[in-house]
Amino acid sequence: MGPNVFRHLHRVTYAECTVGNHIYYSRYLDILEAARGEFFRQIGQPFARLQQEDIILPVTEVRLRYKGAARYDDVLTVEVRVAELARVRVAFSYAIFREPGSVLVEAVTVHACASTDDKLKRLPADLCAALRRFVETPADERVTG
Amino acid sequence: MGPNVFRHLHRVTYAECTVGNHIYYSRYLDILEAARGEFFRQIGQPFARLQQEDIILPVTEVRLRYKGAARYDDVLTVEVRVAELARVRVAFSYAIFREPGSVLVEAVTVHACASTDDKLKRLPADLCAALRRFVETPADERVTG
Amino acid sequence: MGPNVFRHLHRVTYAECTVGNHIYYSRYLDILEAARGEFFRQIGQPFARLQQEDIILPVTEVRLRYKGAARYDDVLTVEVRVAELARVRVAFSYAIFREPGSVLVEAVTVHACASTDDKLKRLPADLCAALRRFVETPADERVTG
Amino acid sequence: MGPNVFRHLHRVTYAECTVGNHIYYSRYLDILEAARGEFFRQIGQPFARLQQEDIILPVTEVRLRYKGAARYDDVLTVEVRVAELARVRVAFSYAIFREPGSVLVEAVTVHACASTDDKLKRLPADLCAALRRFVETPADERVTG
Repeated sequence: MGPNVFRHLHRVTYAECTVGNHIYYSRYLDILEAARGEFFRQIGQPFARLQQEDIILPVTEVRLRYKGAARYDDVLTVEVRVAELARVRVAFSYAIFREPGSVLVEAVTVHACASTDDKLKRLPADLCAALRRFVETPADERVTG
Repeated sequence: MGPNVFRHLHRVTYAECTVGNHIYYSRYLDILEAARGEFFRQIGQPFARLQQEDIILPVTEVRLRYKGAARYDDVLTVEVRVAELARVRVAFSYAIFREPGSVLVEAVTVHACASTDDKLKRLPADLCAALRRFVETPADERVTG
Repeated sequence: MGPNVFRHLHRVTYAECTVGNHIYYSRYLDILEAARGEFFRQIGQPFARLQQEDIILPVTEVRLRYKGAARYDDVLTVEVRVAELARVRVAFSYAIFREPGSVLVEAVTVHACASTDDKLKRLPADLCAALRRFVETPADERVTG
Repeated sequence: MGPNVFRHLHRVTYAECTVGNHIYYSRYLDILEAARGEFFRQIGQPFARLQQEDIILPVTEVRLRYKGAARYDDVLTVEVRVAELARVRVAFSYAIFREPGSVLVEAVTVHACASTDDKLKRLPADLCAALRRFVETPADERVTG
């Protein structure tokens, strides 16, 4: 795996599990949000500051594939990559696993870039620059800063 | 049972359950909020309107006793009573059960009356009047499970 | 709209909302589960009984598109249709709206049919028969928002 | 503060917040569970192993006092102490704060010691020994190992 991956660790709690001892299917979206928040903080673009600058990234689409069950007390790794970087849109792809090579969940979240009054807004140049090195494909030519 | 009880029904989902097939301990607070919302709606005082009138009822204290396990697919009855009605404070007591006479959870929530900028505020007279007939009495306590 | 739609009502609580007063993106999956549970109950195939018969329908994939924000106290309608009915797989499509013609969320969940020890299993004939009349057709798709 | 305190850090996510930008009142119980899990792990008694040894600690009672609002992106400290250590029961007290000296939430959880088939069971001697140094009062004489 290349350098363009952010990794976040997550310890599974009882709060996240359901009957049958596995993570309930919606809780992965909570875990992805936590991973995304840490990712943005690490690249110097915390959501709290973006919001102060009147930039929010509301989710417009999610896709998840469940391939295996995560259990109570598991330590999960969440890999975050940038799947698409466009003028007013950014998408992230995620792989969640307990052991390398054995993905439990694959996911994509698509986000609009908007002002807090919900008008579409161009992604700021410095945010684009910070995200660009996490783009997962060589298709950087797709990107319009 | 007297007239001073509001009853709310709730069907247990997988989302609320955890390992061992019982409701996770925090989810009861979500269920109590739903019951409280329906209670206020029925007495003609929906929270959404109160908030428009600059009145909110933030929770300052909760107490729960877990006496039995609710399971997936159970239909629970949540009984709501007014445990205390003061100038800037109101408390509710709850009993959750699957079958009459067999309480699974007993709870109390205490709420301040405040403006949306978090200043204490006297409970409006019409809200007090609406709540008063649900105030529980020692006699009731003997009657209810 | 044709007869092949199940509708479930849901009142939005504070528990489901986040900063900015709209439903948090993962909570829709909890709402879809509740709608699915009621749907299966109405067609005479409650999940609790299926599980006793060693049949579970684990989610293998979800897709959601968020087109508008649901707010506290909204009453949402969740429409459930059968998007695909295969030998060991069934998919549901959902439309969530506050007012007819204005869809807030579109979703699909894909489920395997399995035994409780997680082996793939053919969908029982009576379950297939019960689900079949909710299979959506191209004609329906044009009809619904 | 003495040595008998375990501290757990928690970063607040959107998933935990509600309308008005503060943590929803039930989510603190999820946070307390995470803190408790880490506490037991640190003292060499992880819940997952206890369960394998047929010991579970179901919650029988909780009490929370909400004194201030935690917000999105706050880093919270959760302090865990042992409030009571009895033959078949243990209670923990918690203080949650953003800044030292300014407690946002105070809480207590009371747990039975039971086998996985829900029969009361004496707390194992090594678990008691591990918990004893976190007892918050000098009332160690109350303790019956």
